[in-house]
Amino acid sequence: MAKPKNAFYAQSGGVTSVINASACGVIETARKHKDKIGKLYAGRNGIIGALTEDLIDTGKESKKDIAALRYTPSGAFGSCRYKLKGLDQNKAEYERLVEVFKAHNIGYFFYNGGGDSADTCLKVSQIAQTMGYPLQAIHVPKTVDNDLPITDCCPGFGSVAKYIAVSAREASFDVASMCKTSTKVFVMEVMGRHAGWIAAAGGMASSADCELPIVILFPEIEFNQEKFLAKVDHMVKKHGYCSVIVSEGVKDADGKFLAESGLKDAFGHAQLGGAAPVVANMVKDALGYKYHWAVADYLQRAARHIASRTDVEQAYALGKAAVELALDGRTAVMPTIVRKSDSPYKWRLGVAKLKDVANVEKKMPRSFISRDGFGITPQCRTYLQPLIAGEDYPPYKDGLPAYVRLKNASVAKKLKGEFKI
Amino acid sequence: MAKPKNAFYAQSGGVTSVINASACGVIETARKHKDKIGKLYAGRNGIIGALTEDLIDTGKESKKDIAALRYTPSGAFGSCRYKLKGLDQNKAEYERLVEVFKAHNIGYFFYNGGGDSADTCLKVSQIAQTMGYPLQAIHVPKTVDNDLPITDCCPGFGSVAKYIAVSAREASFDVASMCKTSTKVFVMEVMGRHAGWIAAAGGMASSADCELPIVILFPEIEFNQEKFLAKVDHMVKKHGYCSVIVSEGVKDADGKFLAESGLKDAFGHAQLGGAAPVVANMVKDALGYKYHWAVADYLQRAARHIASRTDVEQAYALGKAAVELALDGRTAVMPTIVRKSDSPYKWRLGVAKLKDVANVEKKMPRSFISRDGFGITPQCRTYLQPLIAGEDYPPYKDGLPAYVRLKNASVAKKLKGEFKI
Repeated sequence: MAKPKNAFYAQSGGVTSVINASACGVIETARKHKDKIGKLYAGRNGIIGALTEDLIDTGKESKKDIAALRYTPSGAFGSCRYKLKGLDQNKAEYERLVEVFKAHNIGYFFYNGGGDSADTCLKVSQIAQTMGYPLQAIHVPKTVDNDLPITDCCPGFGSVAKYIAVSAREASFDVASMCKTSTKVFVMEVMGRHAGWIAAAGGMASSADCELPIVILFPEIEFNQEKFLAKVDHMVKKHGYCSVIVSEGVKDADGKFLAESGLKDAFGHAQLGGAAPVVANMVKDALGYKYHWAVADYLQRAARHIASRTDVEQAYALGKAAVELALDGRTAVMPTIVRKSDSPYKWRLGVAKLKDVANVEKKMPRSFISRDGFGITPQCRTYLQPLIAGEDYPPYKDGLPAYVRLKNASVAKKLKGEFKI
Repeated sequence: MAKPKNAFYAQSGGVTSVINASACGVIETARKHKDKIGKLYAGRNGIIGALTEDLIDTGKESKKDIAALRYTPSGAFGSCRYKLKGLDQNKAEYERLVEVFKAHNIGYFFYNGGGDSADTCLKVSQIAQTMGYPLQAIHVPKTVDNDLPITDCCPGFGSVAKYIAVSAREASFDVASMCKTSTKVFVMEVMGRHAGWIAAAGGMASSADCELPIVILFPEIEFNQEKFLAKVDHMVKKHGYCSVIVSEGVKDADGKFLAESGLKDAFGHAQLGGAAPVVANMVKDALGYKYHWAVADYLQRAARHIASRTDVEQAYALGKAAVELALDGRTAVMPTIVRKSDSPYKWRLGVAKLKDVANVEKKMPRSFISRDGFGITPQCRTYLQPLIAGEDYPPYKDGLPAYVRLKNASVAKKLKGEFKI
């Protein structure tokens, strides 16, 4: 009997609090099929690890440590921001990948990332076919931006959404306590350069049984200073305070990011600030309200301590499904989440062809944003509700989450010469 | 038998994620002693509620809602930033307080706050004595700044410390994943204008079983740009990345806050930025490393979802102890935490006289900061460890913490005329 083919797994782009849960799903499932999948290698720092033949032998990790990936945030094998060029522009990179796969008898390629990675995964499957090298390339979806098409949602998003909703609720309670004599407006900046999915989650802080005055600035809505200030003023006059959730991607009428609105240091150099301080200062200058502002940045996507249980379960399930698709002989596909019902929330796994996924960005529907542009609609709530549901706490030791760090043992190189990236 | 005296409770200054746990301790304990304590009124928006005779009847709240205060962040009755002037400067305010207390038959005054409030509480006890009005004034300690003397720690601090330690660990895992091709330095700004207690908590993200490269900028240490950049460069060269925890209170050699280091908007107006973007830009300019930065702001002190169990227990215990001290006939005192041993952590309640508490600020010992000024010492770890220990999760509904909001029913006014504050 022929030696089973090995597999390669890599993490790509910005990491999330549940991408390791997908890795866990891939590795645990592969380990159950040793007759079909031999060794499972991971790329050190993503696809760069494949290009430079810097592979990690996940077989050296204990069962316990692999299980711990389920509750460990970030990319356990390292990720990278490295977009492979088009096949025409840099065929050498794709050929190099196939060369490395060949050298290590790799027949399965699992790529865990967002839209760009789906495109890379597709191209890898194509070049392998062109070169006559048998390879099954499966994409595992991941992105806090929730912008992949076909799948109902993307692992990573639900947990960021939960973090933002919880934080916005907590901060709103804080401002409500202080507003009589002090802070009246709290501004929180969230991720989402192109789409307002994460900003929308701020709206979930307010619910029917706990209404809170929240104003959202979406990247989909052109920033109108006058309308925004009028909205904030109205909220403060009515409720005594308000919280503003501003997406880092909000742009003004000239198409310029608010975050880059002309701050200069003492020497006249442009300063990259955040959108939150810009918005906060605007409120102070025009309305005179005392403010506080926060920028969540990495905290939001790393916050495994408050991950959504739905998100963790789906991240794991998609990793598992990717391996099962490979075992079924599929290639150039991505497992997806198919929503069967909203309430009670039911979902099942589906499959999308990578040619339908690559380079397609799912926008937030306009119907998810309230008419005035500053809030979310009931339709948006229905969509978001199940995604932030459930808690999935990591274990703690001495007051801190006991996240795992793997050994990440290197696989001996087989190719001569270095590949320059 | 004489009708038992009523009690008054108010929350003061910046709220915390556990100040309501103290309120819960006060109210639940008072309810157990109806023979001695009649009604328990709360000040709407802190001491302002007393001055303006805007009282809340906590007796209208259900047992269940009062119990829910234990896991609800912020100030359930509203807080305020309002420092009563000295007795000489504004005796009228103190006399007004006693007048309101008299009108509502209040014999117990529980004031939940930091150093300034302890001073107010002391003065109220003095003026009552001078005016011959029998009043027992007990201070309940609260401050995220951890700067009250005598008590080993202050309720509110442990939970902020836990939030910062957990967040710094999570964000460090994130940067570690990305540093090969992207972000190498993550900067997180934390509270603490005068003392570095909260910044020190960032150092707890790194532990013997999970070492992480963390650089701390304390307000106690004059900022030295050259040394700081050398430290960051060393960390990045050694570990591939590092996280910087910067206190909002860090000042340069001229005594100017880093956060106010000369940012101007397009019109030349000074902009209030945070310390984090200033530090991050400095790293980028001098070392060329890609950065990300976050400003936790209110999120850190409102984060009841990740509160420290030690902190919640102590906050409740101090509220309870305050009532018991009053029932013991004490006045002008504050219950304290006395540390009996570090490991296993053991503590008991103590009592401090307000004259020894008021206007005394507990500084962080220099021995808690490493020699190079960028880290914490083992002594500091020993102190902080038990304070961040244990989790105390709130209940959730639909993916969000089910925090309580009280009815806060008003008590009918008895005095004529308004008091202007």
